[in-house]
Amino acid sequence: MTARKPSLTFIGGTGDLGSGLAWRFAMAGYPVIIGSRAADKAEAAAAEMSKGGILSVQGMSNADAAQAGDIVFMTVPFANHEGTLASIREGVQEKIFVDSTVPLMPPKVTRVQLPASGCVAKQTQDFLGENVRVVSAFQNVAAAHLQNEEAHLGDCDVLVTGNDVEARDTVVRLASEIGFKAWHAGPIENSAVAEALTSVLIFLNKRYGIAGAGIHVTGTPTKDI
Amino acid sequence: MTARKPSLTFIGGTGDLGSGLAWRFAMAGYPVIIGSRAADKAEAAAAEMSKGGILSVQGMSNADAAQAGDIVFMTVPFANHEGTLASIREGVQEKIFVDSTVPLMPPKVTRVQLPASGCVAKQTQDFLGENVRVVSAFQNVAAAHLQNEEAHLGDCDVLVTGNDVEARDTVVRLASEIGFKAWHAGPIENSAVAEALTSVLIFLNKRYGIAGAGIHVTGTPTKDI
Repeated sequence: MTARKPSLTFIGGTGDLGSGLAWRFAMAGYPVIIGSRAADKAEAAAAEMSKGGILSVQGMSNADAAQAGDIVFMTVPFANHEGTLASIREGVQEKIFVDSTVPLMPPKVTRVQLPASGCVAKQTQDFLGENVRVVSAFQNVAAAHLQNEEAHLGDCDVLVTGNDVEARDTVVRLASEIGFKAWHAGPIENSAVAEALTSVLIFLNKRYGIAGAGIHVTGTPTKDI
Repeated sequence: MTARKPSLTFIGGTGDLGSGLAWRFAMAGYPVIIGSRAADKAEAAAAEMSKGGILSVQGMSNADAAQAGDIVFMTVPFANHEGTLASIREGVQEKIFVDSTVPLMPPKVTRVQLPASGCVAKQTQDFLGENVRVVSAFQNVAAAHLQNEEAHLGDCDVLVTGNDVEARDTVVRLASEIGFKAWHAGPIENSAVAEALTSVLIFLNKRYGIAGAGIHVTGTPTKDI
């Protein structure tokens, strides 16, 4: 007997990163819910992604999508971060909430500009409250790689941070199911690395002509975890 | 005809990271100056490192060492950062100054704690003034690897940040001469990544039992630089 797979909601799931993740998880057999500010836009994206119902994908408004999913991911531009959080705050109570927001401030996207509080994910945890288990992950993933079925996702390790170890572990396992090497990277404050790294990766892409730079953690683990 | 190699000063050069870097550069044929708060301590460390004069290593007080070197590196604990900067400010004017300071605040060294201003290297640039070309590098290097002649330094890439592209390039080249893969990683604000990453690497070492975790940048450069 296999346990039912949890349903996964992607707030901002019509964007490049959100739709890429949603598609990968739908392909891995998870029931997926796409959220968008406009429900009709989410429904249209879901209908296209489901390929005529072969994959389990629904579309809803962000608020409804947050209520409906067992685990909720958020992938929205930094400018929409606060407003979107307010709209889904109620729906994510008691859940694992995965924030992938990167504090990019156009036009200087190659310059690190972390919030004065340290990092966005910490702000998210403070805003949503202690009953939400906030996990930070997927900031450094090239959306183009996610959307390309041929791309090898092992080329960019995922740093997973958060204060709840069990919730972090769930996200580490989810990431590995779609092909990422994911690492427990410490408490929510450590999200600063992944959030800042995106600007450096964009800089590297431009300076060296790399199509989607990422990182690997080097060194040999000696502990079973 | 070969150009004379510039002399390299290591402020805080009796510590693990500083002495490791100093030794590697001395082995690569650079005249090296070790600085310490106490001149006699620096002299003793230099005498030992020079192996009876085979390598060119001198020891001096930090202030004298900053005056004497063509390029000045600083590797001091975060607690000594501000005080040490004040003592070498005059000596480093018009020079390239390489800051490797990591804002670790014991006992929580596995938790990222960046300064509210964003990063230490930016503070250094602001403090030393525009006539000093501050470059940030080497925060993520395991000192134990540097000190072990057998260790392969290619296992941890070096992110090199700073506002002066030519100065950054000098440091990228120096790092590669002792075996590192070094990358131009953008303006001085981007030092936040390397400064924060050290806490994550320490976390990974503990959690996974890794002896000196590092990172590699992934992706294929297509531009000659």
